[in-house]
Amino acid sequence: MPLESGFIKKTGIESALDIFLNSFEPSGKVETVKLEHADYRVLSKDVVSPRDVPHYDRSAMDGFAVKASDTFGSSKDAGVFLKLTEKDRMIEGECRQVHTGSPIPEGADAVVMIENTEPAGPEIEVLGQVSPGQNIGFKGEDVKKGDVVFCKGRQLKPSDAGLLASMGFTEVEVYAKPRVMIIPTGEEIVKRGITPGPGQMNESNGVMNYLYVKRYGGEPTIHDIVSDKKELLTEALIEGIGYDLIVTTGGSSVGKRDLIADVVSSMGKVLVHGVAIKPGKPVALGYVEHGGKRTPIVCLPGYPAACAIDSMVFADPAVKKLGHMPQSKYRTEKAVLTRKIFSEAGFRSYTRVILEDGKATPLRTKGAGILSSVSQADGYVIIPEDVEGYEAGDQVEVTYLE
Amino acid sequence: MPLESGFIKKTGIESALDIFLNSFEPSGKVETVKLEHADYRVLSKDVVSPRDVPHYDRSAMDGFAVKASDTFGSSKDAGVFLKLTEKDRMIEGECRQVHTGSPIPEGADAVVMIENTEPAGPEIEVLGQVSPGQNIGFKGEDVKKGDVVFCKGRQLKPSDAGLLASMGFTEVEVYAKPRVMIIPTGEEIVKRGITPGPGQMNESNGVMNYLYVKRYGGEPTIHDIVSDKKELLTEALIEGIGYDLIVTTGGSSVGKRDLIADVVSSMGKVLVHGVAIKPGKPVALGYVEHGGKRTPIVCLPGYPAACAIDSMVFADPAVKKLGHMPQSKYRTEKAVLTRKIFSEAGFRSYTRVILEDGKATPLRTKGAGILSSVSQADGYVIIPEDVEGYEAGDQVEVTYLE
Repeated sequence: MPLESGFIKKTGIESALDIFLNSFEPSGKVETVKLEHADYRVLSKDVVSPRDVPHYDRSAMDGFAVKASDTFGSSKDAGVFLKLTEKDRMIEGECRQVHTGSPIPEGADAVVMIENTEPAGPEIEVLGQVSPGQNIGFKGEDVKKGDVVFCKGRQLKPSDAGLLASMGFTEVEVYAKPRVMIIPTGEEIVKRGITPGPGQMNESNGVMNYLYVKRYGGEPTIHDIVSDKKELLTEALIEGIGYDLIVTTGGSSVGKRDLIADVVSSMGKVLVHGVAIKPGKPVALGYVEHGGKRTPIVCLPGYPAACAIDSMVFADPAVKKLGHMPQSKYRTEKAVLTRKIFSEAGFRSYTRVILEDGKATPLRTKGAGILSSVSQADGYVIIPEDVEGYEAGDQVEVTYLE
Repeated sequence: MPLESGFIKKTGIESALDIFLNSFEPSGKVETVKLEHADYRVLSKDVVSPRDVPHYDRSAMDGFAVKASDTFGSSKDAGVFLKLTEKDRMIEGECRQVHTGSPIPEGADAVVMIENTEPAGPEIEVLGQVSPGQNIGFKGEDVKKGDVVFCKGRQLKPSDAGLLASMGFTEVEVYAKPRVMIIPTGEEIVKRGITPGPGQMNESNGVMNYLYVKRYGGEPTIHDIVSDKKELLTEALIEGIGYDLIVTTGGSSVGKRDLIADVVSSMGKVLVHGVAIKPGKPVALGYVEHGGKRTPIVCLPGYPAACAIDSMVFADPAVKKLGHMPQSKYRTEKAVLTRKIFSEAGFRSYTRVILEDGKATPLRTKGAGILSSVSQADGYVIIPEDVEGYEAGDQVEVTYLE
């Protein structure tokens, strides 16, 4: 019986990411989506405005269009009286009521806010002076026709969709979301909802990664559970090659039933196997090829906490690169440790903590198998490779797990 | 011609929110969703585990199940030799190969990692001692049968879905997403995609709020544009009463064409009209009633930047309360102001800034109409009511607009 050995070499997180992310290019696929579906999407080309915004000089307030010079010297105590007109062309001494967004009548060059006026029969008393241009939104003030409003690569937000709508757009061209095939593996894994026998467990990493991948900005699909057989794994990976990224869970270590790295080798290349991260050491990164197509693959360990951390550390940046998206930024907060935490030298540790009143309490976990350590945690503290731990009372930065 | 006056009284932001949020209760509607759709959803009842997790004692590592006492005294240089067995019941001096997740054979009480062993014919050399329980995940260690795993009100995250799956769940009962009717109003507003004439503009606040409401956790619907006519507005609000929240855009000020507050009054109550916030002063908050049902309403101003800020300040917390969700927390960063910024005393200002290398540069905006001030901004600096501004060089907290 041949026996397996552990990882001979553990790659550092940064080099592992470098090697992996440099092994593939962003996806070139684009699609046109309605503005209602444009949130968080990334522009695949520059957006040029087809018109000025606003496309006419407009009042920025409810009030009265005036000649600014007519108001000079007026104040709360000493108003100026202007004749109310409804003509499109005003002369000196006149004013015309305008609403927010009304075109400015010819001859007017400012708007007095309604709050600073008093009605006075056929006239309006202006109680305060305005300067030329005041309370007017000039043609093209927001955006000029032909301006590049947004550059290719911009990730859109709701106010961007509003701006695009105000320029006349109803849809926009964006990069397609990376399609991610998630393949849960393991002969001990049974379908969700089925009662597992001894030695068996319900599939859980697949659905967890399904939700993570959606958060990363990808479009996930979950494959049926694949047992630990080379032929079956190979078949599943061939299906996965039709996607932009493959994420497997389970079987990524170096045990007898850990076949995934071998199968990846046989179909492409394992670029990294074993990373200096805790939890999450037994992760493999590489690519598989079939029918002239190459697809990157992240093989996550089956232990839930390791699976979750490796997913965030390796699968997230891969999805982001494929989809031309900026890397995730998480909310962080400084906190004081309530207990000492250790970390093995040479590893970067993600220690899960509970946050309360500025205090971070490390969760007591015996190993990477404690899924609840990710679920219970409010966040994690990263202990760098060259630090062996932190003392109670140390200030640490907690990254939220929300 | 009757003339309108400005807001006589501006309510402070906190009291406005208090008054508004206390005028309605969270929605009681619940629904059952598959775990694939459970991200960010809020549990409507406690979740009790139907079983222990794990449901048997299992190996937490690939390696060999042993009696810990057999390994005492062994080390890298002086290993202990144990006889390899495949029996389900082990005796002293034996070991059995196990994989991550394998049941622990009877008689064993620890697992030696494969990395700390060497094959030696029919025996295994154990190079280091283990203590009883080491590398074993005990039955119920993660979760015990009958434990309340998650309390009612918890907002779920991907690792929670994983934990629920591992406990045998495939779906979960959550509060329904608040359904929000967004009603763009204004006789000057024309449909998106149509070329606007002078004095007209394309509908843009509706789609902006559609995306915001999705981010808040609500389920938005956009109503057709409603012109400034009391009957039409009334009709639209009656439709809106079928939803959990109504958000209107435009016509919320006190001008001649600002009818929405009057219409709300005639159908229910305006609780707040005019808030000490800049941009965003002309916001109205209240409720409308019809057919025995009462629905809260947020009337946003039509000016895009004001509309965006008021939406985040007032509509977001309303959606969160209706859906039993925790309030939004945004990423913030400290930065140094590059220019002086002013704020009118008594108002809370949301000054939009560009962030670069720890420096916050205020955007030059003339008024609330500059939509691009929200779109261009990386974030905003809040100037409290009792502060009239900040100096160049002051350290400020920037809240990201992402």
